[in-house]
Amino acid sequence: MKHTIKPRLSLTDFTEGILKGDRIVLGQAITLVESKRKEDQDQASRLLENVLTHTGKSLRIGLTGVPGVGKSTFIEAFGKHITGKGLKLAVLTIDPSSPVTGGSILGDKTRMDELSKDPMAFIRPTAASHALGGVAHKTREAMLLCEAAGFEVILVETVGVGQSEIAVKNMVDFFLLLVLTGAGDELQGIKKGIIEIADALVVTKADGDNVTKSLETQAMYQEALHLFAAPPSGWQTRVLTSSAFTGEGIGEVYNTIMEYRQAATVNGFFAANRRQQNVSWFREYFSQLLNADIEHHAAVRTLRKTLEAGVTNLTLSSHAAAAELLEAYHQAIRGIRS
Amino acid sequence: MKHTIKPRLSLTDFTEGILKGDRIVLGQAITLVESKRKEDQDQASRLLENVLTHTGKSLRIGLTGVPGVGKSTFIEAFGKHITGKGLKLAVLTIDPSSPVTGGSILGDKTRMDELSKDPMAFIRPTAASHALGGVAHKTREAMLLCEAAGFEVILVETVGVGQSEIAVKNMVDFFLLLVLTGAGDELQGIKKGIIEIADALVVTKADGDNVTKSLETQAMYQEALHLFAAPPSGWQTRVLTSSAFTGEGIGEVYNTIMEYRQAATVNGFFAANRRQQNVSWFREYFSQLLNADIEHHAAVRTLRKTLEAGVTNLTLSSHAAAAELLEAYHQAIRGIRS
Repeated sequence: MKHTIKPRLSLTDFTEGILKGDRIVLGQAITLVESKRKEDQDQASRLLENVLTHTGKSLRIGLTGVPGVGKSTFIEAFGKHITGKGLKLAVLTIDPSSPVTGGSILGDKTRMDELSKDPMAFIRPTAASHALGGVAHKTREAMLLCEAAGFEVILVETVGVGQSEIAVKNMVDFFLLLVLTGAGDELQGIKKGIIEIADALVVTKADGDNVTKSLETQAMYQEALHLFAAPPSGWQTRVLTSSAFTGEGIGEVYNTIMEYRQAATVNGFFAANRRQQNVSWFREYFSQLLNADIEHHAAVRTLRKTLEAGVTNLTLSSHAAAAELLEAYHQAIRGIRS
Repeated sequence: MKHTIKPRLSLTDFTEGILKGDRIVLGQAITLVESKRKEDQDQASRLLENVLTHTGKSLRIGLTGVPGVGKSTFIEAFGKHITGKGLKLAVLTIDPSSPVTGGSILGDKTRMDELSKDPMAFIRPTAASHALGGVAHKTREAMLLCEAAGFEVILVETVGVGQSEIAVKNMVDFFLLLVLTGAGDELQGIKKGIIEIADALVVTKADGDNVTKSLETQAMYQEALHLFAAPPSGWQTRVLTSSAFTGEGIGEVYNTIMEYRQAATVNGFFAANRRQQNVSWFREYFSQLLNADIEHHAAVRTLRKTLEAGVTNLTLSSHAAAAELLEAYHQAIRGIRS
């Protein structure tokens, strides 16, 4: 035999390895979660079940910003600040634009050079597959595994140009948006709705010649945020400035998040938000399973395409089309059509 | 017999009446659409099917604003401007906060006194039932019926404090947000995300002592809008001022919408948006039907509640819970459990 088959870790190996905080096992478990193979998915599901009671204890922070805003250098400085407090930090990156390969993992470690060598930190990109609910679900599961492995702060990073921000908002406790100095063109890249879900905006690169501009940008955002209603947490969105280069403002970002946690814990929002997120993920999963189930039946899948075409060109009402699709799905489940 | 049973209109009566533009029949047809009785719903569905090819030809405008912004007086002035151009206008109002009774219909007609007497205008509130997808679906169907009855402009009004704005955005071509002069407290009532979906903001009551303040408010919003990325239509959101009292700016609002229609028609967004909306309503309907179907099976309904509780308190993973629910639903359809 040319290739020796690598022995699979058993469910017990995975469970015990994770609960012991073994990074090699954690890495393999995240790969398992990301796998599209049915047997891997089943094992991943059981693994998550096994470690479930050990999850939920970390502080979950979402972070986004357009390319060029300086996410890597910010995460490096911010991450070192966190591990410097004696806290174990996991950084999970979602980049739907580039498929994850050995190379890109390496790329991620290179762009956060110091942090990747920090024994208190764990850096991991999430596979870019959009199949069956996309990368966000995989990231959420990776997050739960990191929590079970004892990581105390989880930083979930997105590139800030896609739909993933809303999904990330729905898995974290606090959402950070990094912004560049200066209004106008540079800001045009910020996706609609992102500013409104942020718990804090951080103006990056506030150093050297940029300091004055960054303070102007801070004031401008602070002003603009007055137009929005207060978020359900009761927290007023902050605008901060920071420099990964001088380290200025990095501690303040951390302190702001601590302040938020304290306030949201006292007013009950922190726990209520987590509960609401759990239910919402359940509904999401169910709706995805249902959708996959519908897609699984070839006749139903084909009918859906036909109906969508009819609805689009107004030869069929949405109502009638929906009823027909449900009937076809029922028949498929009953085995009347495949 | 004390009560004579009112003869039901036949499907043919409804269809022909609507296509002739008979307002009495149109009113009854909207009532039919709003009815929760199964046989009414079936007839409504067939009616919509019958008139479907006669829909889609109007200009659909959404309008919202917090209570006190002057929606009724704006609609009155704006509506008269539209009918003054020789266009037939239908005004559909969604108010999820108050159930529709004869009284509230009367109330609506009173608050738009002139417009309600205009033979070119048709004013109708939509029932406030939230059952099965809520009022938005009923409003959309009422809109289609109005189109089939020959109305050339449809104005869909919401109260601006609920979730209905997003649903309305998804049924109209152009979305107007009315705002008050002055920043700060008065603005706090604007729901998150509403500013971002608006194609134009109209500062109301720009008359008398208020003119200077309204111009300041206009400038402030114009500035704030620069923070957002351009919408997919390529249209840059405008901020206008108007006075229902002096009539100032009312024509400009109309002209802005015409300009939008022209630009969006040329770049193809107008038609593409309509097609996308149709498919999206179909998916929405289907997902609602499916949900109602799940609720319909008592055992599945009960199981869902139990699973949600388990997911909330972390005794069950979202994954496992979703799989269990799907299995139970399958069994219910196969008749294995009820």
